[in-house]
Amino acid sequence: MAEFGKDMRTVKTAEERKNEILDVAEELFAEKGYDNASTNDIIARIGIARGTLYHHFGSKEEILDAIVDRMTREGISQARSIVNDKSLPSLKRLTGVLGSLQVKGSAGNEVMEQMHKPQNALLHQKMQERLINGVVPLIAQLIKEGNESGIFDTKYPNEAAEMIMLYGNIAFDDNENLTPRQKKRKGNAFIYNIEKMLGAKAGSLEKALMRFF
Amino acid sequence: MAEFGKDMRTVKTAEERKNEILDVAEELFAEKGYDNASTNDIIARIGIARGTLYHHFGSKEEILDAIVDRMTREGISQARSIVNDKSLPSLKRLTGVLGSLQVKGSAGNEVMEQMHKPQNALLHQKMQERLINGVVPLIAQLIKEGNESGIFDTKYPNEAAEMIMLYGNIAFDDNENLTPRQKKRKGNAFIYNIEKMLGAKAGSLEKALMRFF
Repeated sequence: MAEFGKDMRTVKTAEERKNEILDVAEELFAEKGYDNASTNDIIARIGIARGTLYHHFGSKEEILDAIVDRMTREGISQARSIVNDKSLPSLKRLTGVLGSLQVKGSAGNEVMEQMHKPQNALLHQKMQERLINGVVPLIAQLIKEGNESGIFDTKYPNEAAEMIMLYGNIAFDDNENLTPRQKKRKGNAFIYNIEKMLGAKAGSLEKALMRFF
Repeated sequence: MAEFGKDMRTVKTAEERKNEILDVAEELFAEKGYDNASTNDIIARIGIARGTLYHHFGSKEEILDAIVDRMTREGISQARSIVNDKSLPSLKRLTGVLGSLQVKGSAGNEVMEQMHKPQNALLHQKMQERLINGVVPLIAQLIKEGNESGIFDTKYPNEAAEMIMLYGNIAFDDNENLTPRQKKRKGNAFIYNIEKMLGAKAGSLEKALMRFF
């Protein structure tokens, strides 16, 4: 495909077109806010016909759904790459996975703000469930590796992974109203609790993880 | 009030009437299922006018909301009584609180089944948030007492309480599709993880808690 790329610039596959719409929608949601950005703004910026947009997405809500879906898939896929990179020690990979789940950038922030509105409770719940189901096995794998190499000591790697991920995902989901000091304490406590639960040496996770909080 | 009770049987306060409607609605939801029970069934069984019911509740959905609200308040209040009963050791009170949060009876089961339907995602989320906000400080108090008496050893009682409650509430919320063996394992793992996180002696929570799983 790569050698045809330049000549076929204007003929986009359905997948490319969809992603382009989502990219521009993310930009506009971040710039104007979700409520103020319209599908008209999206088609104007891309330069496509209204029918092209509606061929792919039935409404602005569907675009938001698809953005959330893509963010979730990307988060899981990024976590998987980190876990499979055996050149890194398992402790570093665990901290990397937990860090990769933090929402990044202004587009991500605007999407998360929408997620926390009452009318999006179901979408938010679905997103969290998918993220948790995708990432728990990856964290469990790292804990098992850590058990084998002797840095962790737990009889229940799967359930510990579930507890870390469920708690982490919810507890750090909506912290905009915390002061920096409160955020730091919450992060410290999370690491302390994980270390104790996994039977890790006190402080072994702390240094690597604290940059995320 | 008590001495007037018998003479004033038919003149119910708004609070009493509301609770009566909720009691009968719970009965009918358990008997016929939420979808098959109507507001007509409720007024027929109590023997009140339609207007009386609608004076208190605008719809069947509002009745469900109120039942969930009452269950949540009762759960928190029961947990508070257990925590404040200083005649019991803190370990027994902690296991009692976690046990008191299990949904009981066929009315409770029917309500929880409704909670797990997509259209009730927001109600379910609100219920969980209220339960968590109400119970976390109670569990934190018990952990602090345990720290003082030497059975626990944690630097972060509040955050440990939050992690226990958030995970417990979600992980044990919808386990109908698990086999008894899987449920037992999940319960065992939860106890093991709590013991490690709180720095409790291995097995000290297990005996008291396992009857709930």
